[in-house]
Amino acid sequence: MEERRKQLIDVALELFSHRSPEDVSIDDIATAAGISRPLVYHYFPGKHSLYEAAVRRAADELAGRFVEPHDGPLGGRLLRVMKRYFDFVDEHGPGFSALLRGGPAVGSARANAMIDEVRRAAYAHVLDHLGVASPGPRLALVIRSWVGLAETTALTWLEKRAIPREELELQLVHDFMALAAVTSAHDPETRGVVRRVVAQEPADGPLGDLVAHLATLAPGTEVSEP
Amino acid sequence: MEERRKQLIDVALELFSHRSPEDVSIDDIATAAGISRPLVYHYFPGKHSLYEAAVRRAADELAGRFVEPHDGPLGGRLLRVMKRYFDFVDEHGPGFSALLRGGPAVGSARANAMIDEVRRAAYAHVLDHLGVASPGPRLALVIRSWVGLAETTALTWLEKRAIPREELELQLVHDFMALAAVTSAHDPETRGVVRRVVAQEPADGPLGDLVAHLATLAPGTEVSEP
Repeated sequence: MEERRKQLIDVALELFSHRSPEDVSIDDIATAAGISRPLVYHYFPGKHSLYEAAVRRAADELAGRFVEPHDGPLGGRLLRVMKRYFDFVDEHGPGFSALLRGGPAVGSARANAMIDEVRRAAYAHVLDHLGVASPGPRLALVIRSWVGLAETTALTWLEKRAIPREELELQLVHDFMALAAVTSAHDPETRGVVRRVVAQEPADGPLGDLVAHLATLAPGTEVSEP
Repeated sequence: MEERRKQLIDVALELFSHRSPEDVSIDDIATAAGISRPLVYHYFPGKHSLYEAAVRRAADELAGRFVEPHDGPLGGRLLRVMKRYFDFVDEHGPGFSALLRGGPAVGSARANAMIDEVRRAAYAHVLDHLGVASPGPRLALVIRSWVGLAETTALTWLEKRAIPREELELQLVHDFMALAAVTSAHDPETRGVVRRVVAQEPADGPLGDLVAHLATLAPGTEVSEP
C-alpha cells in the first residue's frame, strides 16, 4: 500500500516535471501508472493532494542535492552544488518553472510553504559552509539574495536555454562573491567572510580570477577580448 | 460614478497597504469609505475584484516611479529610482509583502500578471538607460536578475527594517554593477556597457569607489575599517 502510494508519486512527479501541472490529469497519471482512475483516488483524494505529494518529493530531492562535504576551497564547493542544482532544474524543467512562477492551477499555500522550506535549506547550507552560526542582517541578506538569484537564473535558463548552463553555474559562484564583496563595504562581518574565502582560493579555482577581472573594468585599463 | 469607483480603489489600496489582504473585509472597506456594504458591491462584485483594481492602481503607481530623466551618470539615476522604489515599498509595506509572497487569499492569476508587468517595465527602463535596444541573453539576464534582487532586498528590509534603507538603496546600485561586472567576464556586450558606465561615473558618485573597494578584498591587501 505504501509502495503503491510511492509509485504514484513517482509517476506524478515524472509527469509534472515534463508538463505544466494544469496539463496533467488524473487520467494521465492512472494511465502512466497502469492502474485505474478509482484506484488513484483511493490513494489520493484529488489531483491537488497528489500534486502536493509530488512537490514534497521534489523539494526533499532538491534539498538533498545541497549537501556538500566541507572540504577544500568554497568556490569549488559552491560550483559542485550549482551543477547538481542545474541537474535538478534540467530534469524537472516545466514543473520547476510552473511551481516557482505560481499560476491558476498551482500555487497552493502548502506547495508555497515547501518551496520556502527549500530556500531556507539552501540558506542554512551556505551559512554552514561559511562557518557562520548567527549572521548579522547584512550577511543574511547576501545569502538570501543569492538564493533568489539562483532561482531567477535557473528560470531564465529554462525559457530558451540560450546560455550554456556550465557558464551560468560558474557565474552564480562569482555572483555570490560579488554580492558579498559589495555588502562588505558596509559590513565588517561580510568583509571578514570574503577575505577568508578569497585567501583560501587557488589561482585556478572558480574564484581565482574574479578580483583580477573586476580590476580590468576600471576606466583606462586595457581589456583583452576573450 | 467613475469618481466613486476611484474613491473605493483609493480606500481599498490604503487598507491593503497596511494590512494583509486576508485581514481586510468588504465591511472594512465600506466603513473606511463611509458608504454601505451593498454600495461597495454595486461597484465591485467582490473583494477579489476590488483587490485586483487596487493592485492595478499600485502597479501603475510603482511603474510611474521608474521614470527617470536620462541626465547625468547612470549611478545617480539608478540611486534616485531606488529611493523612489523604497518610498513605494515603505508606503505599501504589508500589501507589497503579501502580494509578492503570494498566499491563500492573494495570488490571483491576474494580480500575478500585473506584477510581471511591473517587472517588465523595470527591465525596459534599465535597458533604456543603458542605451541598449536588443540585448543579448547575458545582458538581459543581468537586468532581470537585478530586478529580482531589488524585490528580495525590499522584502527582506520590510520584515524587520534591520538595515537602514539608504544603505540598501546604494547597495542595490552597487549590486547592479557587480552582477554586470561578473557577467562581463563572459560577454563582450555587457563588458562594453560596464566600461561605458564606469567611464562616465564621477569619483564622488555612487559607483565611484566600488571598483577600488573590490580591489581591497584580494588577499594581502590592507583594509581600513570604516
